[in-house]
Amino acid sequence: MRRALLVLNTGSSSIKFAVHDAESAARLADGAIEGIGRAADLTLRHAGATHRQPVEGGHLADTGALLEWLLQRLCDELGPMAVTAAGHRVVHGGQQFRGPVVVTAAVMQALQALCPLAPGHQPHNLAGIRAVAARWPDSAQIACFDTAFHQTRPRVAQIFAVPRALSDEGILRYGFHGLSFDHIAGRLAEVLGDKVAQGKVIVAHLGSGASLCAMQNGKSIDTTMGFTALDGLMMGTRCGQIDPGVLLHLMREKGLDGPALETLLGRESGLLGVSGISADMRDLLDSPAPQAAEAVALFVHMILRQIGALTASLGGLDGLVFTAGIGERSAAIRMQVMAGLDWLGLVPDEDANRAHGPLISAPRSAVAAAMIPTDEEAVILRAVLALRG
Amino acid sequence: MRRALLVLNTGSSSIKFAVHDAESAARLADGAIEGIGRAADLTLRHAGATHRQPVEGGHLADTGALLEWLLQRLCDELGPMAVTAAGHRVVHGGQQFRGPVVVTAAVMQALQALCPLAPGHQPHNLAGIRAVAARWPDSAQIACFDTAFHQTRPRVAQIFAVPRALSDEGILRYGFHGLSFDHIAGRLAEVLGDKVAQGKVIVAHLGSGASLCAMQNGKSIDTTMGFTALDGLMMGTRCGQIDPGVLLHLMREKGLDGPALETLLGRESGLLGVSGISADMRDLLDSPAPQAAEAVALFVHMILRQIGALTASLGGLDGLVFTAGIGERSAAIRMQVMAGLDWLGLVPDEDANRAHGPLISAPRSAVAAAMIPTDEEAVILRAVLALRG
Repeated sequence: MRRALLVLNTGSSSIKFAVHDAESAARLADGAIEGIGRAADLTLRHAGATHRQPVEGGHLADTGALLEWLLQRLCDELGPMAVTAAGHRVVHGGQQFRGPVVVTAAVMQALQALCPLAPGHQPHNLAGIRAVAARWPDSAQIACFDTAFHQTRPRVAQIFAVPRALSDEGILRYGFHGLSFDHIAGRLAEVLGDKVAQGKVIVAHLGSGASLCAMQNGKSIDTTMGFTALDGLMMGTRCGQIDPGVLLHLMREKGLDGPALETLLGRESGLLGVSGISADMRDLLDSPAPQAAEAVALFVHMILRQIGALTASLGGLDGLVFTAGIGERSAAIRMQVMAGLDWLGLVPDEDANRAHGPLISAPRSAVAAAMIPTDEEAVILRAVLALRG
Repeated sequence: MRRALLVLNTGSSSIKFAVHDAESAARLADGAIEGIGRAADLTLRHAGATHRQPVEGGHLADTGALLEWLLQRLCDELGPMAVTAAGHRVVHGGQQFRGPVVVTAAVMQALQALCPLAPGHQPHNLAGIRAVAARWPDSAQIACFDTAFHQTRPRVAQIFAVPRALSDEGILRYGFHGLSFDHIAGRLAEVLGDKVAQGKVIVAHLGSGASLCAMQNGKSIDTTMGFTALDGLMMGTRCGQIDPGVLLHLMREKGLDGPALETLLGRESGLLGVSGISADMRDLLDSPAPQAAEAVALFVHMILRQIGALTASLGGLDGLVFTAGIGERSAAIRMQVMAGLDWLGLVPDEDANRAHGPLISAPRSAVAAAMIPTDEEAVILRAVLALRG
């Protein structure tokens, strides 16, 4: 029977996966289930072919059932296999987990206890661990945290200006997208050179979720997301930074309760809310509507403002990296952001930017800019190889 | 009977006032009632003497009664007088009021309608207008708005990334401290020279409330406060910028409702909450407690981060001005902020800073820094003189 390593990134609307040979670590198959909760589709790449099919039961949005179906489908496709180790993206590691960890019963309990900090994500992540354990009880399971990369930040970048008792019980700025930032940190030297990689760099992870990370010598010293993934930049459907007084006003004047506010600020705001058209940046860039242009302008304005804030935390800026969906594919957004940073001495290379880089700044630019594709699954695989025992 | 002009700044915890001669505009008396709601005290400066006395009924926190008492006290002190025009600080002018305005019945109705946008401040401001009207029905009354100065900001600096319908109904970033910023804008050329005054300047209004204003040629183009005075910088008892997810979490996990959140984030947070010691910066700078040092460090960190953000909005920085209580009196805080801005080429002049300036940067500094005392009452008086008819 083939011995395999499994990488799982189990979210609320998608499940990404990769299967690797346990000896050579070569990738055997990968893909994703997307559109969970509406009409879920599986994309499975294996042996040079890409299979697409609807997912039975996917409309139920039952993550456990979906995972069971997916693992069976992988066994059908690849032949009988024993997963000897599996790595999982877990959004929240709290204050306790500062790096990837082997999931013991005690760890699982600790991860479960963190669910209230990320109720929309953490339970799905843990369902991934449970599904693998049910099918391969002997598999080593490794949890890789979105928060862990930010543990190097100084204390002032981790606390809110709230009563100390709340900070002590974990109401902190955790930051997210850590696996993505970790991957980019590992590629900085190769793309931007040692000097920039060891210096002050901002990485802009711009996807349907979006955040910036300020790195000094490849370590996080500040980030734009806070206690949850709602804070910081404007996103596809999330508001990003907002006056807390807006929430208090909507509660007082309109009687909105917690769930209504979560829906409003988490699912109906951002690009979708301001444009009234779409949460997808591609639709907005294609649209002639002034509301679409305004949403794009606000998206760029909020990025520029936060780049300024993180540059202050770094005390200067040597490099800027774009990654994730919008960051990798939208030359227009990268160009608008770079054009707003001439005060830092950033000189874009328009042709290189149109060609998606990797280097997208001119040789004389005081800030080196690049596009580097992210690969969270690669970071998880590295942790699996290091910790599988 | 003496004809007089009255300037009133009626807040929830204090009432500041000044009486001027209606012909010469010379100041006849000024002072404040402070500590309203605890044990209110009147300070009254007149004819070279300063009187202090407890306020009868001040413990009741009834603004109307306090104002009636104050106006009688002024008449007792100065002799019979007819107030021909009065100027009032009004925190919220909404989208409608872009400058000072004579208060007609229709204006009063509009100001009343804005109370839900600033329920802790606006009703007190309007009580000042009513108290003057009750005693001197023929007096012209002029409202001067904290929001008006920020009306010059571009649209992207005025909207949140929320559904468009909410922006349309007035859920906007208004910004505050406009009278203070207006006063400083009028003094930039004198203190920093024409070139800096016409350039990119950040004014740091650091009092028990605190915000920054980014000015281009003396006009506001961005600011740190948003829809309410809770947003932006850390303050004496207010949290400033915070992840909206923290509010949702506290509602869900601890059952906090709107009033409880308002108290927590508005009155128990900021310097007081983080230090657990005091909301007063002087106490914290004097304290050996590490919690006091942490509160001060966070205060400075949040200022530096927001200076970075506003520098991005400006596209560079030529000047930095400190004003209001902490900004005017704390050389230590000014020094810590300036030391964090060497990446912008700011070189402090330590001796000049200790001596409270006005110029507190070195001649070779790329960013000119200054301390300029604010005077909101002077701005109100100017409006009164211009609009009294």
